Amino acid sequence: MHGEIITIGNELTSGMTLDVNGWYASGRLSAAGLQVTRLTSVGDDYRSVSRALKSAMECSRFIIVTGGLGSTEDDLTIEIVSRALNRPLCLDKGLLEIIRRHANGQGTDMCRSLEKMAWIPDGARMLSPEGAACGFSLVEDHVHLYFLPGIPEQMRSLLDKVVIPDLRRLYKKLPVTLCRTLKVYGLNEPRIAEMLQDLHGESGNAVFGFYPRFPENHITVSLISEKARDGAPELDRIEELIRKKLGVAVFATGEESMAEIVGRLLVKKGLCVSVAESCTGGLIGHLLTAIPGSSRYFLGGIVSYSNDAKKELLGVRAGTLKQEGAVSNKTAEEMAESIRRRLHADLGVAVSGIAGPDGGSKEKPVGTVHFALASAQETLSQGYRFGGNRAAVKRNSATMALDWIRRYVTGNTFLPGI
Amino acid sequence: MHGEIITIGNELTSGMTLDVNGWYASGRLSAAGLQVTRLTSVGDDYRSVSRALKSAMECSRFIIVTGGLGSTEDDLTIEIVSRALNRPLCLDKGLLEIIRRHANGQGTDMCRSLEKMAWIPDGARMLSPEGAACGFSLVEDHVHLYFLPGIPEQMRSLLDKVVIPDLRRLYKKLPVTLCRTLKVYGLNEPRIAEMLQDLHGESGNAVFGFYPRFPENHITVSLISEKARDGAPELDRIEELIRKKLGVAVFATGEESMAEIVGRLLVKKGLCVSVAESCTGGLIGHLLTAIPGSSRYFLGGIVSYSNDAKKELLGVRAGTLKQEGAVSNKTAEEMAESIRRRLHADLGVAVSGIAGPDGGSKEKPVGTVHFALASAQETLSQGYRFGGNRAAVKRNSATMALDWIRRYVTGNTFLPGI
Repeated sequence: MHGEIITIGNELTSGMTLDVNGWYASGRLSAAGLQVTRLTSVGDDYRSVSRALKSAMECSRFIIVTGGLGSTEDDLTIEIVSRALNRPLCLDKGLLEIIRRHANGQGTDMCRSLEKMAWIPDGARMLSPEGAACGFSLVEDHVHLYFLPGIPEQMRSLLDKVVIPDLRRLYKKLPVTLCRTLKVYGLNEPRIAEMLQDLHGESGNAVFGFYPRFPENHITVSLISEKARDGAPELDRIEELIRKKLGVAVFATGEESMAEIVGRLLVKKGLCVSVAESCTGGLIGHLLTAIPGSSRYFLGGIVSYSNDAKKELLGVRAGTLKQEGAVSNKTAEEMAESIRRRLHADLGVAVSGIAGPDGGSKEKPVGTVHFALASAQETLSQGYRFGGNRAAVKRNSATMALDWIRRYVTGNTFLPGI
Repeated sequence: MHGEIITIGNELTSGMTLDVNGWYASGRLSAAGLQVTRLTSVGDDYRSVSRALKSAMECSRFIIVTGGLGSTEDDLTIEIVSRALNRPLCLDKGLLEIIRRHANGQGTDMCRSLEKMAWIPDGARMLSPEGAACGFSLVEDHVHLYFLPGIPEQMRSLLDKVVIPDLRRLYKKLPVTLCRTLKVYGLNEPRIAEMLQDLHGESGNAVFGFYPRFPENHITVSLISEKARDGAPELDRIEELIRKKLGVAVFATGEESMAEIVGRLLVKKGLCVSVAESCTGGLIGHLLTAIPGSSRYFLGGIVSYSNDAKKELLGVRAGTLKQEGAVSNKTAEEMAESIRRRLHADLGVAVSGIAGPDGGSKEKPVGTVHFALASAQETLSQGYRFGGNRAAVKRNSATMALDWIRRYVTGNTFLPGI
């Protein structure tokens, strides 16, 4: 069951506003088994809107239009639809009454600009109203058209409560698209493609998607199924296949973030962590504390950005800094051991690196980052070389630090470094 | 000069991904006087992409296409374009060499999936490469088509550095839309609207836009001008009017972030800062160190997430924690003074609050956050009550901490608290 979404507004074509309505509607429709083949954004003018409508009507069974239903001068959707589909505007008295009641409730006088909203194209059916801006639907050449307000809350409410149930009634036995996301860290896209290349023979009707979400890579598996229940075991089977091929690099399924996974593991094992951050500047602590309840396993940390801070707050030895440099396994080890001891934590994690753009050398170019993890039993350390700009190096380093915790507490080895 | 943008990817039509590329490109093109009349998102399949291309070619002088240029199986744009425009794929040896060099630099083997990316349609011109994914352009029936990667950083870089200069060379004498953004912190949107209500009479042809960018509010002033030079004094005049009305709440003009402003001020005054963070968990340090060269004014900090960390790393007195609580002016003051002293900094800034969702009480509900700033002369402290969820409280708190530094070093008073 194919359909399209048309979002209307000069603010969309001029780049002033991000089209969250199209995004929301396509996600909700897809999840309900109503496939969206095209999203179009056009300005508030007759030529653009009528062209978009006519083009969509050629290949779609349903069309969702959002925007331009308000009371101000630049809201022209209804007039354009009336002209484009050759349906004169008629006063909907029920709608007028609703708008009047709503205006009174808000202490607004009923003015001509509000009354304008009660004139809808001949044959149109009003959708249950939300706020002053209502939506309407009509059927033209067997195509079902829905016109919704551009205000996201109103649009979402009408879409979820009226449009999707309406469409699912029209098209019974709609299949459901089931989708599962697997999150990967430590393998780049070409490498993932190589490792999964012989998956297609074993994966039945599943469709794969690959999405770089720096510094992670996400893989989606989509299945079209008659019922939500039927597809789940098949998704489980394919997830298992992928996990077998990619191994521990798959760190999460679904919506969970790396920090959530790490938090869940620490709670499960009853461990507390502390961090000593140099080039990440506090980002590891920020990611860990983004998760509600993180105080159960995160005690705190030290951001030792300057060498003085490394010495005075963490007791890193001057000799280590001089002989090995601030960016070295030895410095990272002393940082990790110190923060673990100072906060009586089970684990101490430390990061020291060169985020750039300055500070690199031939031996230690920008992107060189050393990590250490100290526990009661041992202290492990290793260096990596990350690509990208300052922000990329910081993000990659913070994610790597979390990944070290994840791999350590699950008994896996770290990703190979330099 | 009308054009269109086509963004390709099943993740866009299925609602998995918000189309930030179309948004970015339309904004940049519009600002350069290149009007975008339609944005279209379609899936990675021949029918949808070729239909979108053909439809766009009917009414546009330029078309920007993003996505589907990567190395994985679902990246089909090049093949589809080759078929739709009847141009066979040819191996671009220069491009192959660039991809090979890039792969070697990343320690990746040159595999078939990477080599695929060097085959581009006959007659296409390679755009300056960014990373492994390059773009290309071609001219068909006098329409200029640009194909860019879907990875936002690569797309943005090629658009700004190659595509827009190229189009402006083709279409000389384009009028320019001049736009200036003023960034505001500490005033909400209705309050800004009220304070600026009599601006319209004094602002000539300027068009205003209001964009909430939590926790900031951004105001754009747009002018259409024949030459970039002509509009600048008028923009200066209007900026001055707005600054007079909103005062010190306007913290930046243009692209600069709050952390950049703070950094520039600290360098100018020759001051160094250190931070003691509780509920922000490291976010203040992360924001400060996002700026290249921040080691000149940021020494480091302590993330004292637990009460033990406040005592052991910062020496906050047990009595203070017991009598006043961790979220209090007194605790924040001791934190700020301690971190300032420990790192020999000019300024010590501290934040302690309840980010939620748990931990609130009747006296100190979720969103209660206390701040302190210690200098050689004095220690100032104050509490605020922020709305929103955990992430919102953290962001607002970190921005407020930076705003305290900004206001302190410029001799302004802080925003009023509880």
